[in-house]
Amino acid sequence: MERRLRGVEIVAIGDELLSGASLDSNAVTIARRLEPIGLRVTRKTTVGDSSTQIAEAVRSALERSAAVLTTGGLGPTKDDVTRNAVAAVFNRELEFREDLWHALEARWAHRGRIPETNRVQAEVPAGAEVFPNRRGTAPGIAVEDDSIGLCIMLPGPPHEMEAVLVEQVVPFLEERTGPVGGRPFRRTLRTAGIAESEIAERIGGQLDDLPLDVAHLPEVDGNDIRLTGWATDESEICAVLDEAVARLRGILGAHIYGEGDVDLAQVVGELLRERGLSVAVAESCTAGLISKRLTEWPGSSDYFWGGMIVYDDRAKVDLLGVSEKTLGRYGAVSEETAREMAKAACHQSGADAAIAVTGIAGPTGGTEDKPVGTVWLAAKVRDVVVVGRRYYPGTRDMVRARAAQGGLDLLRRTLLEELA
Amino acid sequence: MERRLRGVEIVAIGDELLSGASLDSNAVTIARRLEPIGLRVTRKTTVGDSSTQIAEAVRSALERSAAVLTTGGLGPTKDDVTRNAVAAVFNRELEFREDLWHALEARWAHRGRIPETNRVQAEVPAGAEVFPNRRGTAPGIAVEDDSIGLCIMLPGPPHEMEAVLVEQVVPFLEERTGPVGGRPFRRTLRTAGIAESEIAERIGGQLDDLPLDVAHLPEVDGNDIRLTGWATDESEICAVLDEAVARLRGILGAHIYGEGDVDLAQVVGELLRERGLSVAVAESCTAGLISKRLTEWPGSSDYFWGGMIVYDDRAKVDLLGVSEKTLGRYGAVSEETAREMAKAACHQSGADAAIAVTGIAGPTGGTEDKPVGTVWLAAKVRDVVVVGRRYYPGTRDMVRARAAQGGLDLLRRTLLEELA
Repeated sequence: MERRLRGVEIVAIGDELLSGASLDSNAVTIARRLEPIGLRVTRKTTVGDSSTQIAEAVRSALERSAAVLTTGGLGPTKDDVTRNAVAAVFNRELEFREDLWHALEARWAHRGRIPETNRVQAEVPAGAEVFPNRRGTAPGIAVEDDSIGLCIMLPGPPHEMEAVLVEQVVPFLEERTGPVGGRPFRRTLRTAGIAESEIAERIGGQLDDLPLDVAHLPEVDGNDIRLTGWATDESEICAVLDEAVARLRGILGAHIYGEGDVDLAQVVGELLRERGLSVAVAESCTAGLISKRLTEWPGSSDYFWGGMIVYDDRAKVDLLGVSEKTLGRYGAVSEETAREMAKAACHQSGADAAIAVTGIAGPTGGTEDKPVGTVWLAAKVRDVVVVGRRYYPGTRDMVRARAAQGGLDLLRRTLLEELA
Repeated sequence: MERRLRGVEIVAIGDELLSGASLDSNAVTIARRLEPIGLRVTRKTTVGDSSTQIAEAVRSALERSAAVLTTGGLGPTKDDVTRNAVAAVFNRELEFREDLWHALEARWAHRGRIPETNRVQAEVPAGAEVFPNRRGTAPGIAVEDDSIGLCIMLPGPPHEMEAVLVEQVVPFLEERTGPVGGRPFRRTLRTAGIAESEIAERIGGQLDDLPLDVAHLPEVDGNDIRLTGWATDESEICAVLDEAVARLRGILGAHIYGEGDVDLAQVVGELLRERGLSVAVAESCTAGLISKRLTEWPGSSDYFWGGMIVYDDRAKVDLLGVSEKTLGRYGAVSEETAREMAKAACHQSGADAAIAVTGIAGPTGGTEDKPVGTVWLAAKVRDVVVVGRRYYPGTRDMVRARAAQGGLDLLRRTLLEELA
């Protein structure tokens, strides 16, 4: 399979991107917007507000790549030096453009006289093409030279950058890329309850004959597998991706809870909705996390009754109805308590299903028998109760996030098995 | 004031960072964590999972800078090639380290046999220094050569990267940076319940005589004010920062809930602990968010009893004990319901204090009278109940985050006023 994609490089400009003051989201937007026209980002370089550094970075990028997009440094203040730096790379002078100045004046009409400092925003390298910016004062600017390449300067604020990119730059680039050699088509499978290395081991070489890239993306509460195939049209690669997904579903079975951006709580919600079941939760160590996640989607009131946060043992007894005998004999973090919690959650609420979680989130409270990270989970669906012990390594936050995911996953598996 | 900071470069590694699949937050963390030891990030290069590209980027970075930090590509799978690429830059072989293998086996002890694929994570360039990673299987690795420079490889997942960076790499680097010429000293004040523009208007020119930068940092659920002064030693700038903080406290009073990284839920927890009070929560639209936040800190079981997630109106009646008459006459989102929820939370639990929240998180469910974003909050401390209506604009997530913050803030203010 041919990968005749052309690459572009990004040069992101701004002291704030290096000092830790700002998180740069522009590269994500650019990559996503260029992908459909067959262009991919091959490298990104972030430099400060220095003419020398910008010029050097743009120059190196143009040596590796036919097109470079810069973001930032087009504002009206002294630290905005991108125009000058790029003009220098292309050996051009900056020229004042009356049409741009009039456009700036028009933007300011509602706010009074335009400040003189904005004047530099009407200056562009000689012979440049200008892309109007309807969300701000800095237009996009393209400079091109047969021997040097193409550089397109974009404003830094994300909503301005995106508007100029989508409305102006993408069509501009699409015209010159001509028929596209191929672009990536992706499928992502999400898993819970299985380690990254175990996934890799189980897959082994079983996808090697397919013309795809397989990437493992570990998250705190699960692992994603991303398949990427390249083609000019989805129909060419669709069968290959389907085949890979089918194989992975065969290899990993119920460890896969969904595809794409789907959240596990959403999957659980849909299973409940399909089956017409309601759910209640009883949370100790996760203390609201599962409830919060189940209610992140509109319409969750169709199946979510509510929950009991039984953090204190008195709450387990008084609010939920766990027996003091069970707590006394087995402890709050035990199979028996988790089972009683799930049963009591259904009993108290009249709900058809329940999730219960009790564990030791840490950093203190662990023992040799029950180290920090020990969690008992229970899921109840009608008359079936499934209980499981887990060990989740990590910080307090991580243990809680993993325990919430584990509880949701146990209910999912129970729903699938009991009510298939 | 001298700013003799030395620079390091970052090389971020991963196809997902260039394809638009992931937003890279690691550079922000690195910049913020290196700043206090007088190091700043001078450039960041992002490349894909390609040995050639990684080696080339690290090599160029080492030519410009004495130290390079890489992030990503240290996992156990085939696309993790950073170790090999950096070993090539330093002309070293990879060597298998028994001590690392034993550490990996120990991590897996609770989960069964360690997969063979993890074996590569025990391989490091010959002579490298290893920084243990207590949050994951990929340790940090430092390789150094007098003529080439220093390269430190860090894992890609942000929570792992940050732990290795803070606990191991910062002290390691601090030893070699020696005396620092001048660095920023910061104080951050956190506010709730007041708009950014109102803060700016109230402050006006009242800090202009102090040699400080004042930055406004708006967050979804409140606004931070960051003061920055530069000095070689804290003692030089301490009095100026104290003076500015005192003035801001005078100007903004109870709108300021804390300093630094403190979380509002932590502040509320400390107030409860100091006063020996326990708290219960009754959450409808926030559905567990407040409970989750109150339990994020170890020791929260000293004051947090538990809570009732009363998402469905039946839960409000059956579990909490809100009267059907109140719900019928005023609706679930009303002053009367919020007040009854707070009272019932105390009644059910025997807790001294309570927070209750009921509102319309959206995107549907709004009316002309009660648009999406309408939230009623109640706080109860002993016999005092304070109820307030709020309007929180934004998406479902934002409304919920703001309502949780608003509920915590109402309890904080009630605790301060009633029991000062």
